[in-house]
Amino acid sequence: MDSFATTTLRMPELEARVAAEPGRFRVLTGERPTGRLHLGHYFGTVRERVRLQGLGVETVLVLADYQVITDRDTADNVAVNVRDAILDYLAAGMDPASTTIFTHSSVPALNQLLLPFLSLVTEAELHRNPTVKAELAASGRSLSGLMLTYPVHQAADILFCKGNLVPVGKDNLPHVELTRTIARRFNERFGPVFPEPEPLITATPEVPGLDGRKMSKSYGNAIALSMTADETAAVIRKSPTDSDRVITFDPVTRPGVSALLTTAALCAGVQPEEVAGHIGAAGSGALKDYTIDAVNTRFADHRQRRNEFAADPAFVTEVLLAGNNRANEMAETTLGEVRAAMGMLYRVL
Amino acid sequence: MDSFATTTLRMPELEARVAAEPGRFRVLTGERPTGRLHLGHYFGTVRERVRLQGLGVETVLVLADYQVITDRDTADNVAVNVRDAILDYLAAGMDPASTTIFTHSSVPALNQLLLPFLSLVTEAELHRNPTVKAELAASGRSLSGLMLTYPVHQAADILFCKGNLVPVGKDNLPHVELTRTIARRFNERFGPVFPEPEPLITATPEVPGLDGRKMSKSYGNAIALSMTADETAAVIRKSPTDSDRVITFDPVTRPGVSALLTTAALCAGVQPEEVAGHIGAAGSGALKDYTIDAVNTRFADHRQRRNEFAADPAFVTEVLLAGNNRANEMAETTLGEVRAAMGMLYRVL
Repeated sequence: MDSFATTTLRMPELEARVAAEPGRFRVLTGERPTGRLHLGHYFGTVRERVRLQGLGVETVLVLADYQVITDRDTADNVAVNVRDAILDYLAAGMDPASTTIFTHSSVPALNQLLLPFLSLVTEAELHRNPTVKAELAASGRSLSGLMLTYPVHQAADILFCKGNLVPVGKDNLPHVELTRTIARRFNERFGPVFPEPEPLITATPEVPGLDGRKMSKSYGNAIALSMTADETAAVIRKSPTDSDRVITFDPVTRPGVSALLTTAALCAGVQPEEVAGHIGAAGSGALKDYTIDAVNTRFADHRQRRNEFAADPAFVTEVLLAGNNRANEMAETTLGEVRAAMGMLYRVL
Repeated sequence: MDSFATTTLRMPELEARVAAEPGRFRVLTGERPTGRLHLGHYFGTVRERVRLQGLGVETVLVLADYQVITDRDTADNVAVNVRDAILDYLAAGMDPASTTIFTHSSVPALNQLLLPFLSLVTEAELHRNPTVKAELAASGRSLSGLMLTYPVHQAADILFCKGNLVPVGKDNLPHVELTRTIARRFNERFGPVFPEPEPLITATPEVPGLDGRKMSKSYGNAIALSMTADETAAVIRKSPTDSDRVITFDPVTRPGVSALLTTAALCAGVQPEEVAGHIGAAGSGALKDYTIDAVNTRFADHRQRRNEFAADPAFVTEVLLAGNNRANEMAETTLGEVRAAMGMLYRVL
């Protein structure tokens, strides 16, 4: 049984501990601000963060702006993307009073952890990381120092705030495992400073894009949370389907139709087959109308709240500023402990 | 002609520019605090820094404490080694009013530069660095992430303060060349922020240890600047020589005798052959007496000043604290420019 399977088996016990003592956990999660958040983000991670916040677990959200340049040469529009992500977090229900939202580049003491941490891993271990391998293959570029050391940055992101609970999908589990290794090696070598964070695997659906592939802004198949009802209708109407008027759920042979069924079902809180039964022989036009309505209904409140926050840029800026201040305090506290453990306080020479 | 040779040819012109306009240059140099400074450091680099300071060139001295763990598992005694280095800098004549002395780990904004810089180099470029290759071979360990990325740390050390003049030996020239590449790529990709620093090659003698190999604390063949006159006499008396009473300068066949001749000559400001002629057929005992006297005379004032500074630990601590504050100001100013260039200021979202 592989690591993902064994970790999954431990989830009911972990969920029970989290529910019993939410105050003992701190979640670290986030994303790279490379574009607008879409339904894939919402059903994959954002909803889960709101659930954890609701349980009373403190949450720290990193907008990993430096990691934007792991696989591209430009950080163009990064401020717009940061703003868009914060608007969606707030609209989804993340509470900036209890949740810390910060940008990676604004917290030097976090990034400094990279140096001791890099001493604790070998180049060979970095190369074994499947995300490094996959991103390298996907980018078609030669391996940059930033991409090679990406798993160590993730360890710094998690450990700077002593995050001990990290929501992950199968792809990211190796990052948490390397983070545990780094924490353990640091503690053994220099003294006990870091927790060994636990991965939290939650049953989140794979959200297909409108063409049936994984939803991704880079595929151009995404429904952004920030689209208007009309924009949503327009992208769904243009989505590829087929001419068989009887609607059935078959992701392999009918990717476009099935993607619409999954999207509509997720939004309506039912199963794709139920949606297919409801549409019957009414054809893909009817399916599209149904899906447009399901998405727009599901996100009407989200979008209204989002527009309200967007109308108050001073508040959004203040949320990030306050989050950056809190993240800096956490990072400096942790860095102080790291310096003490490594004998680098230099208070009296 | 190789890069070192062509760079060496440019030195008279560079030295003339430095002498004409010292205020246009800022030197960045330093060392890893892995032990006490010895005569090799003094004649190789410390003396040269004092010369540059005397020309009116602003100097920034990094004590690269994080780099201690590039090739070993422990940072034990790092605070003692930092103190010892500062004492020798002060005793040699570095003026803390104009020279900034700081510890690497105390300046998070410097270390943060590692992230954008890592995006500008490929893994292949890191592997080509001869120092990475050599240190890897010497350490006999598997390549850590910290050692692999060592040249990028050096680039951050130089560029955080916009150092534009870097004293180097042949071994370190590739670091400065990679730093120039990183500065150029950053400026092209994100906007003009960094100077392309110039390497300054100075004719510094290779200082042999007492066994004729390169002087190094790890070989146990070093005369530390901080030794007392008696300790100096003891280590020189124990040094390996031969039984030929006629003293001649021949580093290949008489490494121990020749090391003593070189040491005595450097300290007395003469040539090794002159010292050999002076000793004649008086044997290695006489040579050792001569060398002991030459070292102790040369460093009598240094050691006295060193003892005076050592008696005032509050002052030494204050020198480092003030240096760290200045280095943090420089680093935060530069990081602000980097954030602006990369669009990561987030002042109004």
